[in-house]
Amino acid sequence: MPITLYDLSGADPARRFSPYCWRARLALAHKGLEVETIPWRFSERDTIAAHGAEKVPVILDGGRSVHDSWRIAEYLEDTYPDRPSLFGGEGGRALARFLNGWADAALVGGMARLVVSDIPALLDPIDAAYFIESREARYGRSLAEVTAGRESQVAAFRETLIPLRLALRRAPFLHGDAPGYADAIVFGPFQWARCVSAFPVLEPSDPVHAWRERMLDAYGGVARAAPAFG
Amino acid sequence: MPITLYDLSGADPARRFSPYCWRARLALAHKGLEVETIPWRFSERDTIAAHGAEKVPVILDGGRSVHDSWRIAEYLEDTYPDRPSLFGGEGGRALARFLNGWADAALVGGMARLVVSDIPALLDPIDAAYFIESREARYGRSLAEVTAGRESQVAAFRETLIPLRLALRRAPFLHGDAPGYADAIVFGPFQWARCVSAFPVLEPSDPVHAWRERMLDAYGGVARAAPAFG
Repeated sequence: MPITLYDLSGADPARRFSPYCWRARLALAHKGLEVETIPWRFSERDTIAAHGAEKVPVILDGGRSVHDSWRIAEYLEDTYPDRPSLFGGEGGRALARFLNGWADAALVGGMARLVVSDIPALLDPIDAAYFIESREARYGRSLAEVTAGRESQVAAFRETLIPLRLALRRAPFLHGDAPGYADAIVFGPFQWARCVSAFPVLEPSDPVHAWRERMLDAYGGVARAAPAFG
Repeated sequence: MPITLYDLSGADPARRFSPYCWRARLALAHKGLEVETIPWRFSERDTIAAHGAEKVPVILDGGRSVHDSWRIAEYLEDTYPDRPSLFGGEGGRALARFLNGWADAALVGGMARLVVSDIPALLDPIDAAYFIESREARYGRSLAEVTAGRESQVAAFRETLIPLRLALRRAPFLHGDAPGYADAIVFGPFQWARCVSAFPVLEPSDPVHAWRERMLDAYGGVARAAPAFG
């Protein structure tokens, strides 16, 4: 029986755009586990509340439900130890936790200020209203104001990618010669950005761009197959 | 025969303050290897040039010399595999490379703007002249100007420590239940700051401060034993 993944979607159920759901999706792919994804929208709180969750991703595996992308990764690593390792040992697991925090702050936070105003157009009206209200409350200004001047602000965002570029000098993936959960952690936000916006967060000459291309091809191209802008 | 470590020092040969030398020092301690440190000053280029190096740390192990803190860590891990692991597996080694880049950019770069003007007073006159000239050329302004307003600028630096705080919620060390090379990577810059300046880069209530205290006590308290301000 495949694992079920509740996966944030837009008005088009094929438009899957949560950075955290993409992390879970790639973690499942890394483990070679069959998955059935269920498009889930912000307004469908009751569906996941039944599994004790307030946000996606949520997975159902047999009788168990697990939510939060980090907890899903640890669950998969511990439940399926004979399948390819997500972390490459305990040192890797410990540092992936650090990377997760860095990626949430620097990448999700940084890219949101470049693309967040493009998201409402992809949502059902009821989801769009929720999204605009909740995010404008968080930023204290309109989403258009958040991304105003992004053509110039993107330079500062690209500066924050220096540690990625240094690591990718050493190996084609953050995990080493092949992708691991570290790559999923960082790829999730980049996939989110390209699924919701045509704005180019990366320059084509950036080694991070080349890595993103490799990640789009990884795991049978599951990420490249998704509807996206870039 | 102990390993030799050329270790950056101030006018007082006991004042060891390079963030990179501290990484190497803790890596050696982690492996339980005997070390003889040799105080080295900026003006002593010939001493290490004889070993093919332009900067410290440099280690001599039998007939071999290795320089650059990252390369020293990999050398020790690969040469002494039966001793406690620095990386905790290949996943940990790969992500330590990322962490190294983040720490150099965010921590060394960020803390330099808080403490760099305090360094010349600790150096021999000839080293102080070299240090001031080379750093002022790098910053394009005087060192006093670089750290001007540090009492207010420190808040932004402390903001960049969020990924550390998130990781330290999970375990007492970045490496997990005990310190590893990941901790040395991050501790090096903090030790540098406290060895050269009384300026408080961390608030005592910060979980990163508590972790720094644990690191000062680690490995028999080797870092706490060094002359420092805080």
